[in-house]
Amino acid sequence: MSFIIREAKKQDASAVLDLITELAVFEKEPTAVEVTVADIEKDGFSDRPKFKIFVAEEASSIIGIALIYMRYSTWKGPIVHLEDLIVTEKKRKLGVGKALYTSVLKYAHGLGVKRVSWEVIDWNTNAIDFYESTGATILNDWSVVQMSEENLDKFVQNNS
Amino acid sequence: MSFIIREAKKQDASAVLDLITELAVFEKEPTAVEVTVADIEKDGFSDRPKFKIFVAEEASSIIGIALIYMRYSTWKGPIVHLEDLIVTEKKRKLGVGKALYTSVLKYAHGLGVKRVSWEVIDWNTNAIDFYESTGATILNDWSVVQMSEENLDKFVQNNS
Repeated sequence: MSFIIREAKKQDASAVLDLITELAVFEKEPTAVEVTVADIEKDGFSDRPKFKIFVAEEASSIIGIALIYMRYSTWKGPIVHLEDLIVTEKKRKLGVGKALYTSVLKYAHGLGVKRVSWEVIDWNTNAIDFYESTGATILNDWSVVQMSEENLDKFVQNNS
Repeated sequence: MSFIIREAKKQDASAVLDLITELAVFEKEPTAVEVTVADIEKDGFSDRPKFKIFVAEEASSIIGIALIYMRYSTWKGPIVHLEDLIVTEKKRKLGVGKALYTSVLKYAHGLGVKRVSWEVIDWNTNAIDFYESTGATILNDWSVVQMSEENLDKFVQNNS
Protein backbone atom coordinates (compact mmCIF):
# COMPACT_ATOMS: atom_id res chain seq x y z
CA MET A 1 0.00 0.00 0.00
CA SER A 2 1.19 3.49 -0.73
CA PHE A 3 -0.60 6.54 0.55
CA ILE A 4 0.11 10.22 0.97
CA ILE A 5 -0.79 12.66 3.74
CA ARG A 6 -2.02 16.08 2.61
CA GLU A 7 -4.22 18.89 3.83
CA ALA A 8 -7.89 18.44 3.01
CA LYS A 9 -9.60 20.41 0.28
CA LYS A 10 -13.22 21.51 0.20
CA GLN A 11 -14.09 18.73 -2.24
CA ASP A 12 -12.98 16.15 0.36
CA ALA A 13 -15.87 17.13 2.68
CA SER A 14 -18.09 14.22 1.67
CA ALA A 15 -15.32 11.63 2.14
CA VAL A 16 -14.49 13.21 5.50
CA LEU A 17 -18.09 12.91 6.67
CA ASP A 18 -18.14 9.27 5.54
CA LEU A 19 -15.25 8.52 7.90
CA ILE A 20 -16.83 10.48 10.77
CA THR A 21 -20.01 8.46 10.26
CA GLU A 22 -18.10 5.16 10.01
CA LEU A 23 -16.58 5.86 13.43
CA ALA A 24 -19.96 6.79 14.92
CA VAL A 25 -21.43 3.52 13.66
CA PHE A 26 -18.46 1.63 15.11
CA GLU A 27 -19.12 3.36 18.45
CA LYS A 28 -22.80 2.31 18.16
CA GLU A 29 -23.97 5.92 17.90
CA PRO A 30 -25.04 6.06 14.23
CA THR A 31 -27.57 8.84 14.77
CA ALA A 32 -25.24 11.08 16.80
CA VAL A 33 -23.71 12.75 13.74
CA GLU A 34 -25.66 15.95 13.10
CA VAL A 35 -22.93 17.61 11.04
CA THR A 36 -23.57 17.69 7.27
CA VAL A 37 -21.33 17.93 4.22
CA ALA A 38 -22.43 21.57 3.88
CA ASP A 39 -21.36 22.21 7.51
CA ILE A 40 -17.91 20.75 6.88
CA GLU A 41 -17.54 22.80 3.70
CA LYS A 42 -18.63 25.99 5.45
CA ASP A 43 -16.90 25.47 8.80
CA GLY A 44 -13.65 24.07 7.46
CA PHE A 45 -13.08 25.89 4.22
CA SER A 46 -14.29 29.46 4.67
CA ASP A 47 -12.25 32.60 5.36
CA ARG A 48 -12.03 31.77 9.06
CA PRO A 49 -12.01 27.99 9.23
CA LYS A 50 -13.06 26.45 12.54
CA PHE A 51 -10.80 23.41 12.06
CA LYS A 52 -8.11 21.95 9.84
CA ILE A 53 -8.05 18.43 8.39
CA PHE A 54 -5.21 16.23 7.23
CA VAL A 55 -6.23 13.34 4.99
CA ALA A 56 -4.54 10.09 4.05
CA GLU A 57 -5.12 9.38 0.38
CA GLU A 58 -4.55 6.13 -1.46
CA ALA A 59 -5.34 5.81 -5.15
CA SER A 60 -7.50 8.97 -5.06
CA SER A 61 -9.45 7.59 -2.12
CA ILE A 62 -9.55 9.14 1.38
CA ILE A 63 -8.72 6.34 3.82
CA GLY A 64 -8.06 8.37 6.96
CA ILE A 65 -8.39 11.81 8.51
CA ALA A 66 -7.06 13.84 11.41
CA LEU A 67 -9.15 16.86 12.40
CA ILE A 68 -7.59 19.54 14.59
CA TYR A 69 -8.29 23.05 15.87
CA MET A 70 -6.79 25.53 18.29
CA ARG A 71 -7.69 25.66 21.96
CA TYR A 72 -6.36 28.04 24.61
CA SER A 73 -4.67 26.94 27.81
CA THR A 74 -4.60 29.61 30.51
CA TRP A 75 -1.20 28.19 31.47
CA LYS A 76 0.36 27.55 28.04
CA GLY A 77 -1.49 29.85 25.63
CA PRO A 78 -2.65 28.58 22.21
CA ILE A 79 -2.50 24.79 21.93
CA VAL A 80 -3.44 22.31 19.20
CA HIS A 81 -6.29 19.90 19.90
CA LEU A 82 -6.67 16.67 17.95
CA GLU A 83 -10.41 16.08 17.82
CA ASP A 84 -10.57 12.99 15.60
CA LEU A 85 -8.04 10.55 14.17
CA ILE A 86 -9.88 8.05 11.99
CA VAL A 87 -8.64 5.33 9.65
CA THR A 88 -11.19 3.36 7.67
CA GLU A 89 -11.53 -0.14 9.08
CA LYS A 90 -10.04 -1.99 6.08
CA LYS A 91 -6.88 0.13 6.13
CA ARG A 92 -5.93 -0.16 9.79
CA LYS A 93 -2.61 -1.46 11.12
CA LEU A 94 -0.80 -0.32 7.99
CA GLY A 95 0.76 2.85 9.40
CA VAL A 96 -1.92 5.29 8.22
CA GLY A 97 -2.85 6.40 11.74
CA LYS A 98 0.77 6.85 12.73
CA ALA A 99 1.41 8.93 9.60
CA LEU A 100 -1.58 11.19 10.28
CA TYR A 101 -0.60 11.52 13.95
CA THR A 102 2.96 12.43 12.96
CA SER A 103 1.69 15.05 10.52
CA VAL A 104 -0.43 16.65 13.23
CA LEU A 105 2.45 16.73 15.71
CA LYS A 106 4.85 18.19 13.15
CA TYR A 107 2.29 20.83 12.25
CA ALA A 108 1.79 21.70 15.94
CA HIS A 109 5.55 21.81 16.45
CA GLY A 110 5.86 24.19 13.51
CA LEU A 111 3.30 26.50 15.10
CA GLY A 112 5.41 26.55 18.26
CA VAL A 113 2.58 25.58 20.59
CA LYS A 114 3.42 24.42 24.09
CA ARG A 115 1.00 21.50 24.19
CA VAL A 116 -1.07 19.19 22.01
CA SER A 117 -4.18 17.68 23.59
CA TRP A 118 -6.77 15.08 22.75
CA GLU A 119 -9.09 12.59 24.45
CA VAL A 120 -9.07 8.80 24.51
CA ILE A 121 -11.64 6.23 25.57
CA ASP A 122 -10.43 3.97 28.37
CA TRP A 123 -10.99 0.59 26.68
CA ASN A 124 -8.85 1.56 23.71
CA THR A 125 -5.66 0.21 25.27
CA ASN A 126 -3.90 -0.12 21.91
CA ALA A 127 -4.31 3.61 21.35
CA ILE A 128 -3.28 4.43 24.93
CA ASP A 129 -0.13 2.30 24.64
CA PHE A 130 0.72 3.94 21.34
CA TYR A 131 0.18 7.48 22.65
CA GLU A 132 2.31 6.81 25.71
CA SER A 133 5.07 5.31 23.55
CA THR A 134 5.25 8.64 21.71
CA GLY A 135 5.63 10.72 24.87
CA ALA A 136 2.02 11.67 25.57
CA THR A 137 0.57 11.58 29.09
CA ILE A 138 -2.86 10.15 29.96
CA LEU A 139 -4.39 12.37 32.66
CA ASN A 140 -6.31 9.68 34.51
CA ASP A 141 -7.51 12.11 37.18
CA TRP A 142 -9.28 14.46 34.77
CA SER A 143 -12.69 13.68 33.29
CA VAL A 144 -14.47 15.16 30.32
CA VAL A 145 -17.78 16.86 31.19
CA GLN A 146 -20.50 17.64 28.67
CA MET A 147 -23.86 19.32 28.72
CA SER A 148 -26.17 18.30 25.89
CA GLU A 149 -28.31 20.69 23.89
CA GLU A 150 -31.43 19.31 25.58
CA ASN A 151 -30.09 19.81 29.11
CA LEU A 152 -28.69 23.21 28.18
CA ASP A 153 -32.20 24.22 27.13
CA LYS A 154 -33.61 22.96 30.42
CA PHE A 155 -30.93 24.69 32.49
CA VAL A 156 -31.52 28.04 30.81
CA GLN A 157 -35.28 27.72 31.22
CA ASN A 158 -34.89 26.94 34.94
CA ASN A 159 -32.45 29.82 35.48
CA SER A 160 -34.02 32.70 33.60
CA MET B 1 -22.10 40.85 49.09
CA SER B 2 -23.23 42.23 45.77
CA PHE B 3 -21.40 41.53 42.56
CA ILE B 4 -22.10 41.80 38.86
CA ILE B 5 -21.19 39.51 35.96
CA ARG B 6 -19.94 41.25 32.82
CA GLU B 7 -17.72 40.55 29.84
CA ALA B 8 -14.05 41.25 30.46
CA LYS B 9 -12.30 44.31 29.04
CA LYS B 10 -8.68 44.54 28.01
CA GLN B 11 -7.80 46.42 31.19
CA ASP B 12 -8.96 43.38 33.22
CA ALA B 13 -6.07 41.27 31.86
CA SER B 14 -3.87 41.71 34.92
CA ALA B 15 -6.64 40.78 37.36
CA VAL B 16 -7.50 37.78 35.18
CA LEU B 17 -3.90 36.56 35.28
CA ASP B 18 -3.87 37.00 39.08
CA LEU B 19 -6.78 34.56 39.35
CA ILE B 20 -5.22 32.09 36.90
CA THR B 21 -2.05 32.19 39.01
CA GLU B 22 -3.97 31.85 42.27
CA LEU B 23 -5.52 28.62 40.95
CA ALA B 24 -2.13 27.30 39.77
CA VAL B 25 -0.67 27.93 43.24
CA PHE B 26 -3.67 26.18 44.80
CA GLU B 27 -3.02 23.21 42.48
CA LYS B 28 0.64 23.25 43.60
CA GLU B 29 1.84 24.19 40.10
CA PRO B 30 2.94 27.80 40.65
CA THR B 31 5.50 27.76 37.84
CA ALA B 32 3.17 26.20 35.25
CA VAL B 33 1.66 29.52 34.16
CA GLU B 34 3.63 30.74 31.15
CA VAL B 35 0.93 33.08 29.87
CA THR B 36 1.59 36.80 30.51
CA VAL B 37 -0.63 39.86 30.82
CA ALA B 38 0.50 40.86 27.32
CA ASP B 39 -0.57 37.42 26.01
CA ILE B 40 -4.03 37.80 27.54
CA GLU B 41 -4.38 41.31 26.12
CA LYS B 42 -3.28 40.17 22.66
CA ASP B 43 -5.02 36.79 22.54
CA GLY B 44 -8.27 37.88 24.16
CA PHE B 45 -8.82 41.41 22.94
CA SER B 46 -7.57 41.61 19.36
CA ASP B 47 -9.60 41.50 16.13
CA ARG B 48 -9.83 37.73 16.26
CA PRO B 49 -9.90 36.87 19.95
CA LYS B 50 -8.88 33.33 20.86
CA PHE B 51 -11.16 33.24 23.91
CA LYS B 52 -13.85 35.18 25.76
CA ILE B 53 -13.93 35.95 29.47
CA PHE B 54 -16.78 36.70 31.84
CA VAL B 55 -15.76 38.37 35.10
CA ALA B 56 -17.47 38.71 38.45
CA GLU B 57 -16.86 42.18 39.84
CA GLU B 58 -17.46 43.39 43.39
CA ALA B 59 -16.65 46.96 44.39
CA SER B 60 -14.47 47.43 41.27
CA SER B 61 -12.53 44.28 42.09
CA ILE B 62 -12.44 41.11 39.91
CA ILE B 63 -13.30 38.21 42.22
CA GLY B 64 -13.97 35.51 39.63
CA ILE B 65 -13.63 34.60 35.96
CA ALA B 66 -14.96 32.13 33.42
CA LEU B 67 -12.86 31.71 30.27
CA ILE B 68 -14.41 30.06 27.22
CA TYR B 69 -13.68 29.44 23.56
CA MET B 70 -15.18 27.55 20.66
CA ARG B 71 -14.30 23.94 19.85
CA TYR B 72 -15.63 21.80 17.02
CA SER B 73 -17.35 18.47 17.50
CA THR B 74 -17.42 16.30 14.38
CA TRP B 75 -20.84 15.13 15.58
CA LYS B 76 -22.39 18.38 16.84
CA GLY B 77 -20.52 21.17 15.02
CA PRO B 78 -19.34 24.29 16.91
CA ILE B 79 -19.51 23.86 20.68
CA VAL B 80 -18.56 26.07 23.63
CA HIS B 81 -15.73 24.91 25.89
CA LEU B 82 -15.37 26.24 29.43
CA GLU B 83 -11.64 26.24 30.06
CA ASP B 84 -11.48 27.86 33.50
CA LEU B 85 -14.01 28.81 36.14
CA ILE B 86 -12.19 30.48 39.02
CA VAL B 87 -13.44 32.30 42.12
CA THR B 88 -10.88 33.85 44.44
CA GLU B 89 -10.58 31.83 47.64
CA LYS B 90 -12.07 34.45 50.00
CA LYS B 91 -15.20 34.79 47.88
CA ARG B 92 -16.17 31.15 47.47
CA LYS B 93 -19.53 29.64 48.50
CA LEU B 94 -21.31 32.93 47.93
CA GLY B 95 -22.84 32.14 44.54
CA VAL B 96 -20.15 33.73 42.38
CA GLY B 97 -19.22 30.47 40.64
CA LYS B 98 -22.85 29.60 39.99
CA ALA B 99 -23.45 33.08 38.53
CA LEU B 100 -20.44 32.80 36.20
CA TYR B 101 -21.45 29.27 35.20
CA THR B 102 -25.00 30.42 34.45
CA SER B 103 -23.69 33.30 32.33
CA VAL B 104 -21.58 30.91 30.27
CA LEU B 105 -24.48 28.51 29.72
CA LYS B 106 -26.85 31.32 28.76
CA TYR B 107 -24.27 32.68 26.34
CA ALA B 108 -23.78 29.20 24.81
CA HIS B 109 -27.55 28.75 24.57
CA GLY B 110 -27.81 32.08 22.79
CA LEU B 111 -25.26 30.92 20.24
CA GLY B 112 -27.38 27.84 19.60
CA VAL B 113 -24.56 25.36 20.13
CA LYS B 114 -25.44 21.71 20.61
CA ARG B 115 -23.03 21.05 23.47
CA VAL B 116 -20.97 22.74 26.16
CA SER B 117 -17.88 20.89 27.38
CA TRP B 118 -15.29 21.24 30.11
CA GLU B 119 -13.01 19.07 32.25
CA VAL B 120 -13.06 18.32 35.97
CA ILE B 121 -10.51 16.78 38.31
CA ASP B 122 -11.75 13.61 40.00
CA TRP B 123 -11.21 14.65 43.64
CA ASN B 124 -13.34 17.77 43.22
CA THR B 125 -16.55 16.01 44.23
CA ASN B 126 -18.28 19.26 45.17
CA ALA B 127 -17.84 20.49 41.61
CA ILE B 128 -18.88 17.14 40.15
CA ASP B 129 -22.05 17.04 42.26
CA PHE B 130 -22.87 20.59 41.25
CA TYR B 131 -22.31 19.96 37.54
CA GLU B 132 -24.46 16.84 37.62
CA SER B 133 -27.22 18.71 39.47
CA THR B 134 -27.38 21.14 36.55
CA GLY B 135 -27.75 18.42 33.90
CA ALA B 136 -24.13 17.88 32.87
CA THR B 137 -22.69 14.39 32.32
CA ILE B 138 -19.30 13.25 33.59
CA LEU B 139 -17.76 10.99 30.93
CA ASN B 140 -15.87 8.67 33.24
CA ASP B 141 -14.65 6.49 30.35
CA TRP B 142 -12.86 9.29 28.49
CA SER B 143 -9.45 10.57 29.57
CA VAL B 144 -7.64 13.74 28.66
CA VAL B 145 -4.33 13.19 26.84
CA GLN B 146 -1.59 15.79 26.56
CA MET B 147 1.79 16.00 24.92
CA SER B 148 4.10 18.59 26.47
CA GLU B 149 6.27 21.01 24.51
CA GLU B 150 9.37 19.06 25.56
CA ASN B 151 8.01 15.69 24.40
CA LEU B 152 6.64 17.24 21.21
CA ASP B 153 10.16 18.45 20.46
CA LYS B 154 11.54 14.96 21.08
CA PHE B 155 8.88 13.26 18.99
CA VAL B 156 9.49 15.52 16.02
CA GLN B 157 13.25 15.04 16.28
CA ASN B 158 12.81 11.26 16.37
CA ASN B 159 10.41 11.26 13.41
CA SER B 160 12.00 13.64 10.94
